[in-house]
Amino acid sequence: MSKFTRNRWRLKLQEIIYEADTPAGKLFDIILLITILASIILVMLESVESIDNTYHNFLNISEWVITILFSIEYIARILTVKKPFKYVLSFYGIVDFLSTIPKYISLIIGGVHALAALRALRLLRVFRILKLARYLGASNTLVNAIKASRAKISVFLFAVLIVAVILGAIMYLVEGEANGFTNIPKSVYWCIVTLTTVGFGDIAPQTPLGQFIASLVMILGYGIIAVPTGIVSAEYTSQSKASKVKEAMGNSESIPNTVPVNSQCCSNCLSESHRDDAEFCFKCGHKLHHE
Amino acid sequence: MSKFTRNRWRLKLQEIIYEADTPAGKLFDIILLITILASIILVMLESVESIDNTYHNFLNISEWVITILFSIEYIARILTVKKPFKYVLSFYGIVDFLSTIPKYISLIIGGVHALAALRALRLLRVFRILKLARYLGASNTLVNAIKASRAKISVFLFAVLIVAVILGAIMYLVEGEANGFTNIPKSVYWCIVTLTTVGFGDIAPQTPLGQFIASLVMILGYGIIAVPTGIVSAEYTSQSKASKVKEAMGNSESIPNTVPVNSQCCSNCLSESHRDDAEFCFKCGHKLHHE
Amino acid sequence: MSKFTRNRWRLKLQEIIYEADTPAGKLFDIILLITILASIILVMLESVESIDNTYHNFLNISEWVITILFSIEYIARILTVKKPFKYVLSFYGIVDFLSTIPKYISLIIGGVHALAALRALRLLRVFRILKLARYLGASNTLVNAIKASRAKISVFLFAVLIVAVILGAIMYLVEGEANGFTNIPKSVYWCIVTLTTVGFGDIAPQTPLGQFIASLVMILGYGIIAVPTGIVSAEYTSQSKASKVKEAMGNSESIPNTVPVNSQCCSNCLSESHRDDAEFCFKCGHKLHHE
Amino acid sequence: MSKFTRNRWRLKLQEIIYEADTPAGKLFDIILLITILASIILVMLESVESIDNTYHNFLNISEWVITILFSIEYIARILTVKKPFKYVLSFYGIVDFLSTIPKYISLIIGGVHALAALRALRLLRVFRILKLARYLGASNTLVNAIKASRAKISVFLFAVLIVAVILGAIMYLVEGEANGFTNIPKSVYWCIVTLTTVGFGDIAPQTPLGQFIASLVMILGYGIIAVPTGIVSAEYTSQSKASKVKEAMGNSESIPNTVPVNSQCCSNCLSESHRDDAEFCFKCGHKLHHE
Repeated sequence: MSKFTRNRWRLKLQEIIYEADTPAGKLFDIILLITILASIILVMLESVESIDNTYHNFLNISEWVITILFSIEYIARILTVKKPFKYVLSFYGIVDFLSTIPKYISLIIGGVHALAALRALRLLRVFRILKLARYLGASNTLVNAIKASRAKISVFLFAVLIVAVILGAIMYLVEGEANGFTNIPKSVYWCIVTLTTVGFGDIAPQTPLGQFIASLVMILGYGIIAVPTGIVSAEYTSQSKASKVKEAMGNSESIPNTVPVNSQCCSNCLSESHRDDAEFCFKCGHKLHHE
Repeated sequence: MSKFTRNRWRLKLQEIIYEADTPAGKLFDIILLITILASIILVMLESVESIDNTYHNFLNISEWVITILFSIEYIARILTVKKPFKYVLSFYGIVDFLSTIPKYISLIIGGVHALAALRALRLLRVFRILKLARYLGASNTLVNAIKASRAKISVFLFAVLIVAVILGAIMYLVEGEANGFTNIPKSVYWCIVTLTTVGFGDIAPQTPLGQFIASLVMILGYGIIAVPTGIVSAEYTSQSKASKVKEAMGNSESIPNTVPVNSQCCSNCLSESHRDDAEFCFKCGHKLHHE
Repeated sequence: MSKFTRNRWRLKLQEIIYEADTPAGKLFDIILLITILASIILVMLESVESIDNTYHNFLNISEWVITILFSIEYIARILTVKKPFKYVLSFYGIVDFLSTIPKYISLIIGGVHALAALRALRLLRVFRILKLARYLGASNTLVNAIKASRAKISVFLFAVLIVAVILGAIMYLVEGEANGFTNIPKSVYWCIVTLTTVGFGDIAPQTPLGQFIASLVMILGYGIIAVPTGIVSAEYTSQSKASKVKEAMGNSESIPNTVPVNSQCCSNCLSESHRDDAEFCFKCGHKLHHE
Repeated sequence: MSKFTRNRWRLKLQEIIYEADTPAGKLFDIILLITILASIILVMLESVESIDNTYHNFLNISEWVITILFSIEYIARILTVKKPFKYVLSFYGIVDFLSTIPKYISLIIGGVHALAALRALRLLRVFRILKLARYLGASNTLVNAIKASRAKISVFLFAVLIVAVILGAIMYLVEGEANGFTNIPKSVYWCIVTLTTVGFGDIAPQTPLGQFIASLVMILGYGIIAVPTGIVSAEYTSQSKASKVKEAMGNSESIPNTVPVNSQCCSNCLSESHRDDAEFCFKCGHKLHHE
């Protein structure tokens, strides 16, 4: 295989793995999506004892098939990236490695339960799916609205936490250890359960005073649930208007100070969201691949 | 009975069954509505053992009355439709058949419980009521708002599901089988119970670390409940404005690119929502009935 | 006492009882409010066995004080109203009578628990407080927003109910009587508990399929909680704008097609919300009292 | 130490303690924040018996370190304030004193649990953190929206309380003492638990009629949760627009009738939020410190 052929091969592979806009790239992404979902369902089913006992062989073989598919993908990614070490040490690189390795380890060591924990790491791969979901038009306004209100919701949740700590300490003093409020952290846990209107009922106030304070906590929680909703509503409305302005401008024109981007991924530094008409990576200056 | 008289009879029946705008049609729809509601209440009451023991005869006779009414309706629909087979094989045709047949089967076979399951299928008939509810003006804006935000809410719920899977797997590893988190699917179930702030309490974290993670899950759920609300609020506000524009235009004029429709149903292909001034069905070209 | 003096007395009493804008009327309303609240707290405390045992005498005397105050108010209302029979047979007339009588009955009959039930009727008097609350400026926009969205919320809640019936029947078939879903009404009850995210946990699905369906129910409930919120938000925003327009117009001017009303109550027919400059009752034509 | 040097020292200390805009002041605030958080975590950990048994010595020493730091801060505040008695008797003065003293008392008296209660008072110090949080830009719109809707939410919560009392009394009569509804206050407590969709499940209706009423309560709660959300959404949207107007005006210009304020605190009367260009305290006329 001449160096030229190898390069063409690599370019083709790059296109398949890192771009979601070409037919081959789309097919790769869909197969990857299905494999990840299948691997997640496998991890879930294996944890159910009765299913594991009955279909042990089938699950074992499926595990091997998925492990081999993940191995191929992992090796292909290393081969096509210009700086393999950067990929290996990146977040996705580590997740890809950790989600591939457990089955190989199980050949050497026999302990099942500890490996289940490792295999569960494979769940982190769903973030790849989330990355794909980003290209769904529907979620853009949503993600923007959440991003815009992130700071405000953080401040709000911090305030909720302080309220939970204060009320938790009060409930600890009022109810005492006899009624399940054995210590302040547990009391704070109960308070969060109540403020968020979850209400497990594993711990519940028994004294009249405790029930009175609990009522106040609940009504407070009922009142403040309105706050994050109000924030997101307002942000979403303004995001929605901005995207409608964009549509009104002919859908091909963009809102000021933004340009259309595509799903291409730089094969050198793995950065994303390049301009549609970009020739070079905006981050490392590497030449981008074009058809 | 001459063919002509038979035809006039059929036309009259068609008008009664398939149109909700004539007095006879309205009466038919209201009687149908009451019969369906009565049949649903009957199915519910029969499932209560103490009531079934005391009023068995009354319930049995009521069942027969409703079954006969449903039989008459089913036969009338077959007689009046131009293409009976199409109706019989349509969704409503099958539901109508399945909700009529159980009582007749009970004459042959005696098993009570299995037939209760079949009778419960009658509940699907409530969709006919929902169809009627569609003509309630109040629900139009509502339905439009939900339709418009469907895609966004789906993306959101999918994201919630992924979060539930990841957090469920973590809780399985943290709490373990001893505390009720016997397998990952059950853990994911617990996570959905908690994220949606339902909180049954049949499974609850026992370890301090589990309770700490549970607190994060609850606060997360509290924060993200704001998202669908924000979406619907924004959509509803814009839908509301559109319908107010319509009202401002004189209520007789419609918003651009829409025409007033009526509740007539084509007797040939059963398609609905024809233009008020339509002479022929927009789907099959069949001549529509006019008074 | 001459007829003239009696009439002046009656007019003064009328002013005190039926108008909330004069100083004497305000004082009467505040005393009434405190008495009602005190009587409600008394009913609540008496139901607590330990408190009733310890403070029986104090509670008994307080009951008599409140009963006498209520008796005086009831007689005063009858004396001042032009058509006493109309008042006696009106909703408030019946509530006033029923909330006064139990203590007198207890002199004749000794049964304590049955009378507690009657005394609880006194709680209906809080509607008088709600009537007073209506004059709080803050609640006007709120009440209008709720009124405007009433129809839409009803349609929505009806849809929720149908969903609960269908899902309840499915859960009854899936979980069966062994897991607490003893009959369809109980199943529907569980479904409402779950859809509204209350989640008592007294009944909880045990089978994997049941838990899967429950997860769907919860996510559905989580998604649809957004709908009433969206409706009220949108209505409230538009109500808010209308009231701001009013404010911008100088606060003395009203929005088109509305006039300022006051809290005066016609002494003949008890109708309320007369125009500030009204000379006669808009309902019965009776001359209104002026200072 | 000459009087002049002492004054310069005091001025420097004042700057550090009461101003958050200078580097030294920022450092002081951050150290204070960390110390308060550490002291809160200590109180929480000490209440956990197993942790207290294992790390008793470490926790004891940490307590002393924090107590000494708080003592230094308390003395420094007294020394630098012009009217020490006013500070000592102010809310923060009392909180600072009470959160410092428990460890010293523990030297004299040995009772552990009672002191834990006193130490818990230290949690009130988090209000100082909240004060700092006020300067976070993100929370301003939030706080304004909550302030603006406070009156309306109060009216709403009062209405919810009345509904809870009425429904609680009904449930007490329907379910009775046998099913856990032992008295009306407990019934009202259950009603609040249900209306706010918390749903502990420690008390749950057992009779069919009770479950039917409970369903109505839940659907009601589901419907009215929309109200506070609608209020805050509407207020937040209008607050948001106001702050955007401010931004559009160039960010340096303020909205009409407001001026930029800073975090300086008058060393005489401890009042805050002085104008950026203020030379004298707006409350007591004392000369403000400038760099």
